[in-house]
Amino acid sequence: MTDVVSVDPRTGRPVEVVAQETTHGEVDALCTSALAAMPDVEALGRAGRAVVLRRMADGLEKRRQEIVRLADRETALGATRLDGELTRTCHQLRLFAEVLEEGSYLEAAIDHQAVTPMGPRPDLRRMLVPLGPVAVFGASNFPLAFSVPGGDTAAAIAAGCAVVVKAHHSHPATSKLCFEVLREAATAAQAPEGLLSLVHGLDAGTALVEHPAIRAVGFTGSSTGAHALLAIIEGRPDPIPFFGELSSLNPVVVTPSAAHERADELAKGLVDSFTLGAGQFCTKPGLLLVPTGPSGDAVVRGMSQRVQAMDALWLLNEGVADSFERGTARLVDTAGVEVLAHGQEADGHGFQAVPLLLTTSASAIPDEVTEECFGPVAVVARYSDEGDLIGALQRTPASLAATVLQSETETELPARITEAFRSRTGRLVYNGYPTGVAVTWAQHHGGPWPSTNSQHTSVGTTAIRRFLRPMTWQDAPADLLPRELLDECTEVPRRVDGALQLAEPRPQTDQGQAT
Amino acid sequence: MTDVVSVDPRTGRPVEVVAQETTHGEVDALCTSALAAMPDVEALGRAGRAVVLRRMADGLEKRRQEIVRLADRETALGATRLDGELTRTCHQLRLFAEVLEEGSYLEAAIDHQAVTPMGPRPDLRRMLVPLGPVAVFGASNFPLAFSVPGGDTAAAIAAGCAVVVKAHHSHPATSKLCFEVLREAATAAQAPEGLLSLVHGLDAGTALVEHPAIRAVGFTGSSTGAHALLAIIEGRPDPIPFFGELSSLNPVVVTPSAAHERADELAKGLVDSFTLGAGQFCTKPGLLLVPTGPSGDAVVRGMSQRVQAMDALWLLNEGVADSFERGTARLVDTAGVEVLAHGQEADGHGFQAVPLLLTTSASAIPDEVTEECFGPVAVVARYSDEGDLIGALQRTPASLAATVLQSETETELPARITEAFRSRTGRLVYNGYPTGVAVTWAQHHGGPWPSTNSQHTSVGTTAIRRFLRPMTWQDAPADLLPRELLDECTEVPRRVDGALQLAEPRPQTDQGQAT
Repeated sequence: MTDVVSVDPRTGRPVEVVAQETTHGEVDALCTSALAAMPDVEALGRAGRAVVLRRMADGLEKRRQEIVRLADRETALGATRLDGELTRTCHQLRLFAEVLEEGSYLEAAIDHQAVTPMGPRPDLRRMLVPLGPVAVFGASNFPLAFSVPGGDTAAAIAAGCAVVVKAHHSHPATSKLCFEVLREAATAAQAPEGLLSLVHGLDAGTALVEHPAIRAVGFTGSSTGAHALLAIIEGRPDPIPFFGELSSLNPVVVTPSAAHERADELAKGLVDSFTLGAGQFCTKPGLLLVPTGPSGDAVVRGMSQRVQAMDALWLLNEGVADSFERGTARLVDTAGVEVLAHGQEADGHGFQAVPLLLTTSASAIPDEVTEECFGPVAVVARYSDEGDLIGALQRTPASLAATVLQSETETELPARITEAFRSRTGRLVYNGYPTGVAVTWAQHHGGPWPSTNSQHTSVGTTAIRRFLRPMTWQDAPADLLPRELLDECTEVPRRVDGALQLAEPRPQTDQGQAT
Repeated sequence: MTDVVSVDPRTGRPVEVVAQETTHGEVDALCTSALAAMPDVEALGRAGRAVVLRRMADGLEKRRQEIVRLADRETALGATRLDGELTRTCHQLRLFAEVLEEGSYLEAAIDHQAVTPMGPRPDLRRMLVPLGPVAVFGASNFPLAFSVPGGDTAAAIAAGCAVVVKAHHSHPATSKLCFEVLREAATAAQAPEGLLSLVHGLDAGTALVEHPAIRAVGFTGSSTGAHALLAIIEGRPDPIPFFGELSSLNPVVVTPSAAHERADELAKGLVDSFTLGAGQFCTKPGLLLVPTGPSGDAVVRGMSQRVQAMDALWLLNEGVADSFERGTARLVDTAGVEVLAHGQEADGHGFQAVPLLLTTSASAIPDEVTEECFGPVAVVARYSDEGDLIGALQRTPASLAATVLQSETETELPARITEAFRSRTGRLVYNGYPTGVAVTWAQHHGGPWPSTNSQHTSVGTTAIRRFLRPMTWQDAPADLLPRELLDECTEVPRRVDGALQLAEPRPQTDQGQAT
């Protein structure tokens, strides 16, 4: 038996034993129960699962203060941020309830029997079905929105999958509390017990990914962790989809016109963005391309002044603090990298990090700089002309987001920057900051590797697609078809004999309104 | 330099040297050219790529006789089958042209700026964009529909990706001819030269999958081949999606009522299906569950008689012939497996295979039987009751297709069989045969592992999704948006602020009509 301990990052000291690490036998029992629950989860139907998700949101909101207080004690992210994160988490759960009601996520399609140049064609009906039990790995940096009650859990349940969450060791008490709230809500909504389970411990996580009942993995975390899990998946007789959001550099370009127009505003915006949440966002802008010359100098000076004025920030846990220390030491020692500014000295309490701003030349960005360093650090790369800038962009690895800060009137340079970014990002941001990822229908949070599955998103309504697979029924008797594939069904959008058809309007309820 | 030799399977003898194996340097040049072509391929637009695809279909049809004759000489699949395969291949190309015109494959979505409970939300616009150059591995068993001019090529070009095809060594001359036809059509349609390339040789295939420019792989073939390519992908600094259709058992259940009603019809249908194309379909029914007792006996007797009357069939190549010989010898030697019937002796010419029908008990199906054996062989597993049947189904691996042959009036048993099949297949077939996969909007050809990507199909219009990834534009100036994401665009279906909207009706042209 190994204790699962909750640590306060503001003191660095253990506060309480939350649980015992889950044994392999327990993991097996939970996975088996998740698999056994699948028919009942599916039988809840889209409407039933929408109720589950809304009850979960209601349950979390009812215990808002308690959850926020506990999450703050375990993450030091601050009550304001965590309050916002809880609001986002509840919104996410309710948005997936809408996705279920709207129903186009099923991609339902019917091709009736026909005679074709290739001969007679059978009746074919396709829609997406749940993959099976999903393992969700909670993230250290979002104890709510990407952890037990987070987007992966919401999307998987919406898809009709049972979920086993591996609690992040950095916030086990918050994980446990949220799990209890969700479980209670699920039970009240008639969901089977196997719908949602929680495990603690690294070994339990490994056992989860190995387990034959698990059909997909959602993961937010480090490359190292992801590679370890991928190796386990590749060793399975039946490898399964792995959806990992790993490190990301998220380059930002400040154009000369933008630097000239609003150096101070940009300096504030950039520092706010790379130090938000103590720089522990997967969308943190880690590489800032700023022109050489007086306007660029003004941006850099403004940033340096702001960084110098900053206090040390608490990081999430000892591991993050250690790797920030190692990572920044390595950057500072790298030839071609210079320190522009650092914040106030730490006072020696807990897992503190001193904000750091570095600089290098865009024409010779060292490899060390293109690797993500989690925490409040960013590197300014100065470019002398357009060729210098575009060359630098073409050498950066792919990122979740890529940002252009430009003048309202310029078009040519932003077009060239966009072209350079196109094959290297999942989201293009204009005159904004990459941190902050709205949960909507049109959102995308992914991109080419280091997102392990470049074809899907981990944020937004289309995140549900990760936990579904297509299935086709050929000449099936009506009584064996899902209701959404019956000829007379008008409740979901469908493609019938090639033509897209909208659903019949649904009666509006208080709960069914658009958000 | 290594010769690429075309062999006639009917004689087993080399006929001509078609080409030289592509060198690593040549592969590099072709991949680089494919990458360079991407902006031009995208600039063709949906309409321009539709023209390319239709010209390709026209070009293939103009040389129909020549292509069919050559493909028959290289595969021994017969002119009738290959003529049908060419028709299917051209239909496939034209259907993807329709997919482009229809435009919903883009999954375009717009969320306008809004104020939400989480604060102000930016303008977000999402659609799918091409992944980048795609490597397509031609299949031995479909020299047209799953090879150079096949579904993967059509889907990738439709998606806006340049394609480098690795010709299957079993039909290099057909590959070369088809490539020339497609290339000529592409040039006539203003497509860049890098849109389509062809490589020959195992080493060239390896170099292709290793090449940094390649962003996805489409593969139809053996598990061994797939595992070798997956190992290469896992060694890349940026692993890429691999879409493999590998072996598949495709179980078929004959219910007692069906056996009672139409034993002879079923016997004919089953033998026709498992020996179609000399049993070289990935949808070949390899395991046939037939009830014990007189009705089941009648089915088995009918099958045996038909198999006994069959001549030896030509297999595609020496490798397939060798592995059929080894595989059937292993099955015959397996404890619990008995020979029911075999066809007429081979006459000693070329790569012949004698059709073979085996039997075993459903209650103790040996592991050897649940592995695919490519070629004209099937195993009948006799079940004594429903428990016996369902237990057997629950022990079979996942398959591309799973089939129920039932009486029109029965409902309970088909429902239980369907339930057992649900998590183990991509397509459920009722009172039909799994061979024959129509190319339509609602088709699905995939499933849980051994399809390496359970979430996507390799047949049907949604196959295009494999070569696309989402991208989101945040607060982008209108001049940097793709036209399909401009507010005023009405030419494709879109989701606007959460609501699905149909496209404005398109003017009907001769080419744009539904098929």
